[in-house]
Amino acid sequence: MAARTSAPSARIPAGLAGLEPHFNAVRAASVALVRPLEIEDYVVQSMPDVSPAKWHLAHTSWFFEQFLLRPKLPGYTPFHQRFEYLFNSYYEAVGPRHARPERGLLTRPTVAEVMRYREHVDEHMVRLLHALDAREELLPLVELGLNHEQQHQELMLTDIKHVLSVNPLEPAYRADLLQSAPGTDRTVTPGWHKLESGLREIGAAGDGFCFDNETPRHRVWVDAFEVAARPVSNAEYREFVEAGGYGQPAHWLSDGWAAVCEHGWTRPLYWDESLEFEFTLGGRRPIHPQAPVCHISFYEADAFARWAGARLPTESEWELAAAGLPLAGNFVDSGRLHPAPPGKTGPGQFFGDVWEWTASAYAPYPGFHAAAGAIGEYNGKFMCNQLVLRGGSCATLADHMRATYRNFFYPQSRWQFMGLRLARDGSR
Amino acid sequence: MAARTSAPSARIPAGLAGLEPHFNAVRAASVALVRPLEIEDYVVQSMPDVSPAKWHLAHTSWFFEQFLLRPKLPGYTPFHQRFEYLFNSYYEAVGPRHARPERGLLTRPTVAEVMRYREHVDEHMVRLLHALDAREELLPLVELGLNHEQQHQELMLTDIKHVLSVNPLEPAYRADLLQSAPGTDRTVTPGWHKLESGLREIGAAGDGFCFDNETPRHRVWVDAFEVAARPVSNAEYREFVEAGGYGQPAHWLSDGWAAVCEHGWTRPLYWDESLEFEFTLGGRRPIHPQAPVCHISFYEADAFARWAGARLPTESEWELAAAGLPLAGNFVDSGRLHPAPPGKTGPGQFFGDVWEWTASAYAPYPGFHAAAGAIGEYNGKFMCNQLVLRGGSCATLADHMRATYRNFFYPQSRWQFMGLRLARDGSR
Amino acid sequence: MAARTSAPSARIPAGLAGLEPHFNAVRAASVALVRPLEIEDYVVQSMPDVSPAKWHLAHTSWFFEQFLLRPKLPGYTPFHQRFEYLFNSYYEAVGPRHARPERGLLTRPTVAEVMRYREHVDEHMVRLLHALDAREELLPLVELGLNHEQQHQELMLTDIKHVLSVNPLEPAYRADLLQSAPGTDRTVTPGWHKLESGLREIGAAGDGFCFDNETPRHRVWVDAFEVAARPVSNAEYREFVEAGGYGQPAHWLSDGWAAVCEHGWTRPLYWDESLEFEFTLGGRRPIHPQAPVCHISFYEADAFARWAGARLPTESEWELAAAGLPLAGNFVDSGRLHPAPPGKTGPGQFFGDVWEWTASAYAPYPGFHAAAGAIGEYNGKFMCNQLVLRGGSCATLADHMRATYRNFFYPQSRWQFMGLRLARDGSR
Amino acid sequence: MAARTSAPSARIPAGLAGLEPHFNAVRAASVALVRPLEIEDYVVQSMPDVSPAKWHLAHTSWFFEQFLLRPKLPGYTPFHQRFEYLFNSYYEAVGPRHARPERGLLTRPTVAEVMRYREHVDEHMVRLLHALDAREELLPLVELGLNHEQQHQELMLTDIKHVLSVNPLEPAYRADLLQSAPGTDRTVTPGWHKLESGLREIGAAGDGFCFDNETPRHRVWVDAFEVAARPVSNAEYREFVEAGGYGQPAHWLSDGWAAVCEHGWTRPLYWDESLEFEFTLGGRRPIHPQAPVCHISFYEADAFARWAGARLPTESEWELAAAGLPLAGNFVDSGRLHPAPPGKTGPGQFFGDVWEWTASAYAPYPGFHAAAGAIGEYNGKFMCNQLVLRGGSCATLADHMRATYRNFFYPQSRWQFMGLRLARDGSR
Repeated sequence: MAARTSAPSARIPAGLAGLEPHFNAVRAASVALVRPLEIEDYVVQSMPDVSPAKWHLAHTSWFFEQFLLRPKLPGYTPFHQRFEYLFNSYYEAVGPRHARPERGLLTRPTVAEVMRYREHVDEHMVRLLHALDAREELLPLVELGLNHEQQHQELMLTDIKHVLSVNPLEPAYRADLLQSAPGTDRTVTPGWHKLESGLREIGAAGDGFCFDNETPRHRVWVDAFEVAARPVSNAEYREFVEAGGYGQPAHWLSDGWAAVCEHGWTRPLYWDESLEFEFTLGGRRPIHPQAPVCHISFYEADAFARWAGARLPTESEWELAAAGLPLAGNFVDSGRLHPAPPGKTGPGQFFGDVWEWTASAYAPYPGFHAAAGAIGEYNGKFMCNQLVLRGGSCATLADHMRATYRNFFYPQSRWQFMGLRLARDGSR
Repeated sequence: MAARTSAPSARIPAGLAGLEPHFNAVRAASVALVRPLEIEDYVVQSMPDVSPAKWHLAHTSWFFEQFLLRPKLPGYTPFHQRFEYLFNSYYEAVGPRHARPERGLLTRPTVAEVMRYREHVDEHMVRLLHALDAREELLPLVELGLNHEQQHQELMLTDIKHVLSVNPLEPAYRADLLQSAPGTDRTVTPGWHKLESGLREIGAAGDGFCFDNETPRHRVWVDAFEVAARPVSNAEYREFVEAGGYGQPAHWLSDGWAAVCEHGWTRPLYWDESLEFEFTLGGRRPIHPQAPVCHISFYEADAFARWAGARLPTESEWELAAAGLPLAGNFVDSGRLHPAPPGKTGPGQFFGDVWEWTASAYAPYPGFHAAAGAIGEYNGKFMCNQLVLRGGSCATLADHMRATYRNFFYPQSRWQFMGLRLARDGSR
Repeated sequence: MAARTSAPSARIPAGLAGLEPHFNAVRAASVALVRPLEIEDYVVQSMPDVSPAKWHLAHTSWFFEQFLLRPKLPGYTPFHQRFEYLFNSYYEAVGPRHARPERGLLTRPTVAEVMRYREHVDEHMVRLLHALDAREELLPLVELGLNHEQQHQELMLTDIKHVLSVNPLEPAYRADLLQSAPGTDRTVTPGWHKLESGLREIGAAGDGFCFDNETPRHRVWVDAFEVAARPVSNAEYREFVEAGGYGQPAHWLSDGWAAVCEHGWTRPLYWDESLEFEFTLGGRRPIHPQAPVCHISFYEADAFARWAGARLPTESEWELAAAGLPLAGNFVDSGRLHPAPPGKTGPGQFFGDVWEWTASAYAPYPGFHAAAGAIGEYNGKFMCNQLVLRGGSCATLADHMRATYRNFFYPQSRWQFMGLRLARDGSR
Repeated sequence: MAARTSAPSARIPAGLAGLEPHFNAVRAASVALVRPLEIEDYVVQSMPDVSPAKWHLAHTSWFFEQFLLRPKLPGYTPFHQRFEYLFNSYYEAVGPRHARPERGLLTRPTVAEVMRYREHVDEHMVRLLHALDAREELLPLVELGLNHEQQHQELMLTDIKHVLSVNPLEPAYRADLLQSAPGTDRTVTPGWHKLESGLREIGAAGDGFCFDNETPRHRVWVDAFEVAARPVSNAEYREFVEAGGYGQPAHWLSDGWAAVCEHGWTRPLYWDESLEFEFTLGGRRPIHPQAPVCHISFYEADAFARWAGARLPTESEWELAAAGLPLAGNFVDSGRLHPAPPGKTGPGQFFGDVWEWTASAYAPYPGFHAAAGAIGEYNGKFMCNQLVLRGGSCATLADHMRATYRNFFYPQSRWQFMGLRLARDGSR
């Protein structure tokens, strides 16, 4: 998610009239997210995957400056000559860029300067939007920039969580986050939903914004299968841990076992040794037994499923199971910023709470074609070595989510809000 | 391929009568392969992926000792107590094993001792086979062991090639290998074969030996597509190199570009700077323009295809295109041990010459289930982070190949005989 | 220098009356040094050798809290329970500590909190000093703490310089630093001072504060030798660069040549490719030809000397040559924060400007004995693999320097203000 | 020792008449050393410091070909054009060379070819020696080449020991080595020899062959000191291990403690966990309590000495203590190839058994000057980051040793026969 953009395939629902308020609202949301931070918190890169909050704030502005203001707003003067270099994420066509692992070495520009940069970009973007009636062709790029910014809002939260977590002082991002009371019973066996075999369709149908990796909608043959009625819970995952799951190579993929040994994994990221407490955006808190397990890699999800006598669903299975369900769930809008137990969210908990690892490698859909130019240059460039996750998390915006949305990460990644749901073959 | 085994799903065609000669023939073929080597050549591990020839000879014997002689031959005494540890490849259930990157540190057992080990195992295996009528249930394991040994025969050749290649003296494995005369024209545009969309089936049908990863045969929906009439040639690939293909990030997957930069790739493995000569099992030789390009990673295959305005076929597409073609081709049996230009082989050159990278991540087929026990423990354990290759190479035995055969390697691997064939969407 | 402490061997000159003002002055000097920084500048660790400014400010306070307030001030309450762990540098006897390369991961405590920590420590230290007449035995520890803080003041400057230097924006620490006008002639051959052979003495004589590594004063036999009348200049070093010095292994120690190849060194740290400009604490500025060359490793100093037909002096030779000279020089007190050409400083430029690499490995003097307890536990623990430097630099306090002072760094270090002076055998 | 050569400073004692037999004897000794090996044993490089036996045999021949036959024997044809490149160790002036860590990748030339190379060189060297009366100036180079070969004979033994040691089969180099019967008492406190302070001389006096690093003989002031009457024994070192010495940072130099943590050291190299057995050139054998401890790094020697309330001697102290003692000891000539308890050797066990770590960094003696040309180019190039060891070991030839001999290794090295002797200040 750190490095995706894509050509929009759909129109802006609200039309031109709603665009400026929408633009201002999305941009303001980024600034609202960082308000609880100290200046020092904006600077650090706690591992190569993480970007400093300051960088996110600048890079999302760079996107508008690079792809809209520079080429499209007559007479536009860039805010700073070197920012084109400093805040390019991976667009090779745009030119050289500052090395990713060195984002945490930059003390300048200061946070205050980055905020001025944002204001400069916002002012000029509003000017450009006012002139848009004459150039409706820019709308898709604006919409893309806003979706891009929403993705970075989620990354800002997960990155800040990681930065704070490596500090022995265990500082909270916000101490006032809503918590769910722990339940009394530890494990409730979930039911299973069965779907019949058949020739189906998945992918975006073209009636709203989507990223290009969700297209084209296409036919797939799916054998009968079953999916669990909710994600795997902390209590269930703890059983796996306590049963010695991290010490039994038989449960693991070969590369997964190598990762366990290399990193010394013995439990989910952010759990402490007692298996009773975890680090959250609200600081150190008791682990809620019924809430979905979170911050596990694909390897751990896959090993748990094998141990449980099940498997992960493919992304086709997931999408077919979730299709038609309401997009309700524990999103960032709930103010929890942490997965919650069932009952707080929509049916089946398909949306929100945790991104669910699927068994599917991230690959182009049949007939996929990248857009032209710098925006489209890299549409498919991440389609290797990563796995698809579905459904959004407690750090995702509700109106950013849809059933066809494809997120993707490397199998060893753990710092996003990642969990799993079990599946099994239907012919039982 | 280095670390696979699987439960056989099919019967031995020739039945019990043919088994002993077949066993002896396969075992003798391994020994025949190493005959051109000097003792020193058996010892070295030139990179972690490579195993010393000595190790291959011992490990393939270990397989029979471990899974057949120890459990099934009453009164069997293992040849050496520590060989169980030394020559286990990756079977975690069998117990601890010698670390893979340290295989090249073992000067003992000597080659002569390993040969005695082979003889010891062979003698006792023949004894076991004679008693087999009473226990036909062992046949699948024997057959699996022989297919396993054939896989290692191919690896021995590619590993020896790599070992010799890192020597500035550029020694040949065999100086007398048959060569194809270079043609005069450099490039002939291949034709395209078109296949219509439809609901099809792929996977092993159960009428002969196969590995479990080829099962179950299952339905897939395939959109219309076209595949090239032959693999990409050296001449064509050289155009990509000379056009600056290794310097243009736009052609590459993100991880591919990172690999190019990390390893400093500028051409296929074994080509020299002039782009005119390559290291082969016959020593340094001119590159044949019409022969299939070889020793390229998935990243290079993918980048070439994108540069050429095409793409790699999925493994479904490949299997459907190859289904029904005769299994003729330039296999190890031809004595070339190098890819040859079209005309030497079967129609379309689908089989032999080079393994063809597909666009498909190596994953379980729908409904796949692993066998029980140590043999089956790891059936699916490599189903992550690797890509499927199809068709066999000039180092594969002809009778080891079939259209449903799934080979797999990491996307950065180059030391096998690996090439590519172009494909494109059918709706043109 | 990053990690030394030692037991004082001498009395405080000014006595008890002068102690409190002296304490306050040294502590205030640290705070004055960071005044030009932005908050973001305090946080970053640009390489493992560098510590964030915030850490220096806290660690120097931790020293007083750990070794004086906790054990000696009745009823003292530590400012924060975890600071004992966070700001311990390397005192194993004190307990576990936060890993050095992770100092740049800490966003908290904030700079403001660190400043409050300093104030808390200062207040209680003053209270302790008032009671000191009853416990004069604490004076050596106080004096040691203040010398320790002065060492960290120099490190703060060199660390900040490195942090700012890795930023493509090339920000200045202070844009208003005094500069020396470049001279017109590039090279003036320095004279040589000759010293006769004989049995001499080096080491601290016991008439003022010194670190324990300067003791005991002891006899050494020294053969006749000559030392240059000033350090090697930028113009002279540039000749070495332009003569291809970095490409000729014959000039280099074996480990030095390995370092050149590994790091790709082609010129001093902070010089740009043109050899005309360098990064300074005042930002990017022209290189002054007559000023001493700076920011070179021991390997570079040694290679230059060999190229020039000379050698580095031993630390005995250096100390004998400098003995008796006034302690005048371009120290931090001058406000330049950069080496200056001759004429601005004392005779021979032995003191200030640049630390001068010697040929001597850092080792205990004959008869050296470490003090008891945590302070003394590590007196000799750095006496391996490092080389001695002498004379102080433009970042050293004038009253912190003396002829017997032994600084030490690894031979590959370059980020301190390090240069060299030539020597040669006397029997010419 | 792996990479030293130096210009001889002295004449060949026996004169021209004795040269050819001496040449033949030294060359034959190398071949005799490898006779117990299997072909496979010649090939492997078990760590970067180790060279394959095959390489040693070729490199020592390369030395004569490179520095004598090529430049001095009219009409000489090199044995193989690429051997100049393959078997250069580190002589930068001679040209590029095969990378050291890749010596174990070369399966060719075979051992048989290397032996033919040796014979080729020997034949031509004898021809050159016959013509030597006309060119006596070559004698120093011949003598240097023979001393160089003797150094490599010791390295061959220690390298082979390491190669065999990494094999879980624990093969012996020779199973018939003489062993010393273990004594009954574990610890006998050694006496101390006292030397008075004074102005002394160390270094080679010019009355026989020496390496240039032993020159010039020069004056040193030495304070009164004491040295132990024998090296530290296995029983004494075991006490340190059992007292938790490897777990107490207070005993260790800072870099030493880092090495302990990085490598997980808990005992000398080749000891097993029981502290009762060790791997030797004769295979696995009981540790002899009274024999000198062996295969410890400088860091371990230094830590033991500190724990024991003593210190290592400087190289001056060692040389002065050993001066005048007979050169008797347990050298390679004894056929033990392992350190022996006192009583088997000369007084004080200064010579043979184990090289003794000193406290002295390897550095040029005052007035040292390198010879001209390729031979002398690198005389001083290793004089950084290494420590001096004295006295020779059970793998050194008796007639290769002298009191002024300076061996040197990095402080973390353990694979040579390395031990220690305690010293302490004399003013007790």
